[in-house]
Amino acid sequence: MRVLGIETSTPVVSVAVAADSQVLGEFSLTTKRGHMEHLLPLIDQLLDGLGIAVDDLDGFAASVGPGSFTSLRVGLATCKALAHSVNKPVADVPTLDVLAWELQGTSGLICPVLTARRNEVYTAVYVSSHSGIKRLSSYLALNPLGLAQRLQGELRTKITFTGEGAKKHWTSFQDCLEDRAFLADPARMLPRAGQTAILGTEILSREGGKEPGSVEALYIKSPAIRRRSSR
Amino acid sequence: MRVLGIETSTPVVSVAVAADSQVLGEFSLTTKRGHMEHLLPLIDQLLDGLGIAVDDLDGFAASVGPGSFTSLRVGLATCKALAHSVNKPVADVPTLDVLAWELQGTSGLICPVLTARRNEVYTAVYVSSHSGIKRLSSYLALNPLGLAQRLQGELRTKITFTGEGAKKHWTSFQDCLEDRAFLADPARMLPRAGQTAILGTEILSREGGKEPGSVEALYIKSPAIRRRSSR
Repeated sequence: MRVLGIETSTPVVSVAVAADSQVLGEFSLTTKRGHMEHLLPLIDQLLDGLGIAVDDLDGFAASVGPGSFTSLRVGLATCKALAHSVNKPVADVPTLDVLAWELQGTSGLICPVLTARRNEVYTAVYVSSHSGIKRLSSYLALNPLGLAQRLQGELRTKITFTGEGAKKHWTSFQDCLEDRAFLADPARMLPRAGQTAILGTEILSREGGKEPGSVEALYIKSPAIRRRSSR
Repeated sequence: MRVLGIETSTPVVSVAVAADSQVLGEFSLTTKRGHMEHLLPLIDQLLDGLGIAVDDLDGFAASVGPGSFTSLRVGLATCKALAHSVNKPVADVPTLDVLAWELQGTSGLICPVLTARRNEVYTAVYVSSHSGIKRLSSYLALNPLGLAQRLQGELRTKITFTGEGAKKHWTSFQDCLEDRAFLADPARMLPRAGQTAILGTEILSREGGKEPGSVEALYIKSPAIRRRSSR
C-alpha cells in the first residue's frame, strides 16, 4: 500500500510517501508563512523523484492537528482535494501522535507540546511499549505551568518533552520537574510526514480511512473555553 | 552556524540544512541507483526552498560511511566540490553514528547495522545517556551471526537494531537474542542528513572541520581481510 502523508500543523511543511510501512521519500521545509507556496511543488518533486503518479497512490494521510490554524487547513484542503481527484481514502492522524511516535523506544513518559493560543499548549501523555506508542491521557489544551504541575503528580519517572512548544516552555518544565525533565533531540522535535504516512497506513489497513470530504481538523477544547460556554 | 548535510551511504539520498542545531529542511529519497541523478537537484530545491545560497553556508557535513561504495563516493565528491567552491570546511560524520543518534533516548543498547560485502555487516554498539549517544565498541565488519553471538555475551539488556542491514538479518538476531532483540521503528531506520548536519555542526564548532580535499570515506577492515593479508 502506497500512502502520501501531508503534515502542515507546525512551521514545518512536510510530505512523504510510505510503502508497506517503509518511508520511500520525505521532503520537509521549515517556513513561517510559506505552507501554501511550498506544499504542492514539494509533493510534485517528491512523487517525480520516486517515479510515482498521484493515481498510483492507494491512500492519503493527513496530520489533522492540533496546530497552526491556517497552515493546518492548507494541508488538509490539499490532501482532501488530491484524494478526491483520484477517489482514494484519507486517514486522519493527530499531530501529537506523530510527534510521540518519533520518540518510540524512549523510556519513561513522552510528552509532545504544541503552541496553542492564549498562552496555552496542546499536549497528551504517551508511553513507549514493545508494541508501539500508547497514549495515556486525552488530548489536552492547558497552560504550560498546569501541564508541569500535573506531570509532577505522576509516578517519579523521566519525562521527555518534544515539539516546538517544548522548546519554548522548557524552563517552566525544568523548573517544576527538575532532573526528571528531558528535551528530545532537536533532529526529532518537528513532526515529519514520514511518520504521518506510516501511522496513516495502519489506519487505512485497519479501518479503511475516511471519504475525503469528511476529514476535519482535530479541535481540542481548553478548560477556559468550556467554562465560558457554561455560563 | 548554517551547515549542509549530505548522506548517500545507503539506498537513501538525503540532504538537509541545520542552523544552530535545528533542522531547517531535509529532503530524502529512496533510490536504487539514482544518487548521482537526484543529489544536486535535491540540494538546489532545498536551498531554494529555504532561501539560502551555497555561499551563505558556514560549513558542510558528509556522512562518510561505511556504506554502498559508489553512492557514498558520489555524495562525498559532491560535498567536497561544493565546500571547495565556497572555501568552507567539511565535517566527516560516520554513518553508524548518524543511525545511532536517530535513536537517542532509547533504553538498552543501540546497534546500527549496514550491509557490507561477503555476507558481512558494518556495525558498532552504542548506548544512550543524558548527554547524548556514546559509542561502546570500535566500528566493526563481521558476519551477522558473529555479531549476534557477541551481543549474547553482553549484559542481559535490551538491544535495538536499526539500519537497512538490521531488517535484512532480523531473523538471525531474533533467533540468537530472542526477546532481548528489538527492531527500530521503520520511520527511523534510514540515515537522515538532518542528523548528519547536526552532528557535523558539533564537529565544526569543536574542531573546525577538515579542508575539503582531505575528507575520505570511512574504511572498516573486516577480520577476514586482516587474516588474508597476514598470510
